[in-house]
Amino acid sequence: MSITVVGTMAFDAIETPFDKTDKIIGGSATYVAYAASFFVQPIQQISIVGNDFPQEELQALQARGVKTDGVEIVPDKKSFFWSGKYHLDMNSRDTLITDLNVLADFDPNVPDSYQDCDFLMLGNLVPAIQQKIINQFKQRPKLIVMDTMNFWIETAWEDLKQTLTMVDVLLVNDSEARQITGEYSLVKAARKILTMGPKFLIVKKGEHGALLFHENKVFFAPAMPLDDVFDPTGAGDTFAGGFIGHLAKTKDISFENMKTAIIVGSAMASFCVEKFGTERLKEISKEDIGNRLQEFVQLVNFDITLA
Amino acid sequence: MSITVVGTMAFDAIETPFDKTDKIIGGSATYVAYAASFFVQPIQQISIVGNDFPQEELQALQARGVKTDGVEIVPDKKSFFWSGKYHLDMNSRDTLITDLNVLADFDPNVPDSYQDCDFLMLGNLVPAIQQKIINQFKQRPKLIVMDTMNFWIETAWEDLKQTLTMVDVLLVNDSEARQITGEYSLVKAARKILTMGPKFLIVKKGEHGALLFHENKVFFAPAMPLDDVFDPTGAGDTFAGGFIGHLAKTKDISFENMKTAIIVGSAMASFCVEKFGTERLKEISKEDIGNRLQEFVQLVNFDITLA
Repeated sequence: MSITVVGTMAFDAIETPFDKTDKIIGGSATYVAYAASFFVQPIQQISIVGNDFPQEELQALQARGVKTDGVEIVPDKKSFFWSGKYHLDMNSRDTLITDLNVLADFDPNVPDSYQDCDFLMLGNLVPAIQQKIINQFKQRPKLIVMDTMNFWIETAWEDLKQTLTMVDVLLVNDSEARQITGEYSLVKAARKILTMGPKFLIVKKGEHGALLFHENKVFFAPAMPLDDVFDPTGAGDTFAGGFIGHLAKTKDISFENMKTAIIVGSAMASFCVEKFGTERLKEISKEDIGNRLQEFVQLVNFDITLA
Repeated sequence: MSITVVGTMAFDAIETPFDKTDKIIGGSATYVAYAASFFVQPIQQISIVGNDFPQEELQALQARGVKTDGVEIVPDKKSFFWSGKYHLDMNSRDTLITDLNVLADFDPNVPDSYQDCDFLMLGNLVPAIQQKIINQFKQRPKLIVMDTMNFWIETAWEDLKQTLTMVDVLLVNDSEARQITGEYSLVKAARKILTMGPKFLIVKKGEHGALLFHENKVFFAPAMPLDDVFDPTGAGDTFAGGFIGHLAKTKDISFENMKTAIIVGSAMASFCVEKFGTERLKEISKEDIGNRLQEFVQLVNFDITLA
C-alpha cells in the first residue's frame, strides 16, 4: 500500500527554554515521511526545496523507501525557512522568522509514477493546492487525510471549506477546531465538522493527547508522559505519519483500526519530542516502537469488572 | 468497609459564562460523600456547619448512609461560604468571596463511633488538622488519601511536609504538583513526591484527565468529552469520592485496582460538572454510573495486535 505525502521540506531554527539549534532539517512532509516509512514503503513525496537543501538528506530519505520524484529542486532559490521560540509550557510558541523562499512558487504536480496511491496525506498547505493535488489523481485514493492551520481558516475559508468536502479525515488542533466552528466545546465542534465533509476528525491537543471523532463515537489517546519534552517541533506531523502509516500497513480504515492508528501516531510523536528535529526518528528501531506501544497499553488499560 | 471523610460542608455561589446560582450547598466533604455513598456505606462524615445549614441537607445525606455524628453544628455562627466566577475555559476561576465563618474554629475530633475506619479521605484542610485526625485513630486506617492546595504549600509547608509522611495517596492538581517540587515536568514532579511519603500520587488535570503514579509506573484516565461543562465546582472532590468509594467497595488497594478506581472517579466527576453543585449527583442511579463506565471503556480501549 503506497502513501503519497504532500507538504514542506524545509529548514527550521528552534529555540526552547533548554537549548537552541542552528538551521536543521524540518518541514511537515519530512516528519510524515520519517514516521510513515517505519510502517510501509514506498512513501511518495511531493514537495519543493531550494539549492541549499542537502543532497544527503534526500538520500537519507530515499534509503528509507521515500521516493523523491515529486520533490522539485529550484536551482536559484533557497528552501523554506522557519524559526521559532517555545514558551516554558512547550505548547505555545512565537514565530521569529518565516522565509517562504521556494514555497511561494509551490505549484505541485503529481508525477505519473505516483498515480498508484492508496493513502494521501495532505500536509498544511494552501487549500487550493490541496484540492489541485486531489484532482490530479486519476483514481481517488482510498483515504485522504488533510491538515490545515489558523492562517488558512482566516484567509482562505471558502477554498478550505471546499477542500473539506473532498477528504476523509481532518487533522487539526483544538484551537483550529474551535476556530472552524465557533464552538468552544470540542464535542460540539466535532459534530459540526463531521457535517462539513470529513467522516473522521482528529483533534490534537499536544501534551494533552488527541481525540478521534466518527459519527457519534469518540476515542481518546493520551500523550506519553515524558521526563522532558525537549522539542515539540514536528510532533503533529510525526503523529500524522504514524497514523497513516499504520492504516496503510494494515489496509484497514475502520473506526476500530483508526483507534490503534492514533495510538501508533502518539507513540511516534512521543519519540519525536525527545530530541531536536528528526534526530530521534532517525535513531529509533521498530523494536523501540513496539516497546513504546506496550507502554501505551500499560498507560491506559484498566480492568472494569462491574458488579 | 467504612470510609471516613473530613472536609468542608458549605455554601457556594457560582458564576459561569453561562449561568449563575444563589447560595447552594457545597464543600469538599459534601461532594466526597455524595460520590462515595454510591459504592459503600456508611460514610462517616467529619465537618463543621453553622446555624444556617439546612436540616434537610443533613437528612438527605443521612438517607444515603452518611453518618453525621462528626458534623459539628455551631449554633451562633454561619457556615463557610465561597463565591467564585469561572472563566470561559472552565479550568480557571476567580474567587469573589471567602467567608470562613465556622471554619475558622474547625478543630475536629474523631467520634468514638468512627474508630472502625478502613479508608480515610482527608479533604483540603490545614495540614496540622489533617495530622491530628490521623493521630486520633487508635488503629491506622488501611488507606489514607489526602488533598491539599496551593495556600498550604505557601503558608504551612513544614506541617504539610510532615502530613505527607503519614499518608498513602496524595491527590493534587498539576500546578500544585509543580509547586510542591519545583519541577515543571509532571513525571519528574511525581518522582520527587513519591520520595516524600505517599506511595501513590494522583495528578488531576481537570478537562485533561488525571495521572496515577506509583513506583515507576504511570496510568492515565481521560476526562469524558462532554457537550458542555456546566459547572466544574466539586469535580475534584467528586473524583476523590468515586476513587475511594471504589477502593472501599472492592477492598483492594493494589495499583491495578487503583487504575479502575481512577476511571470510576472520572466517571463520577463527569456527572458532577453536568449541572450546578450536587444537583446531578442527587439525580443519577447506579445504572447511570455503569453506563458511563462503559463509555469510558469505549473511549480508551484499543486493539494492539503488533505484527
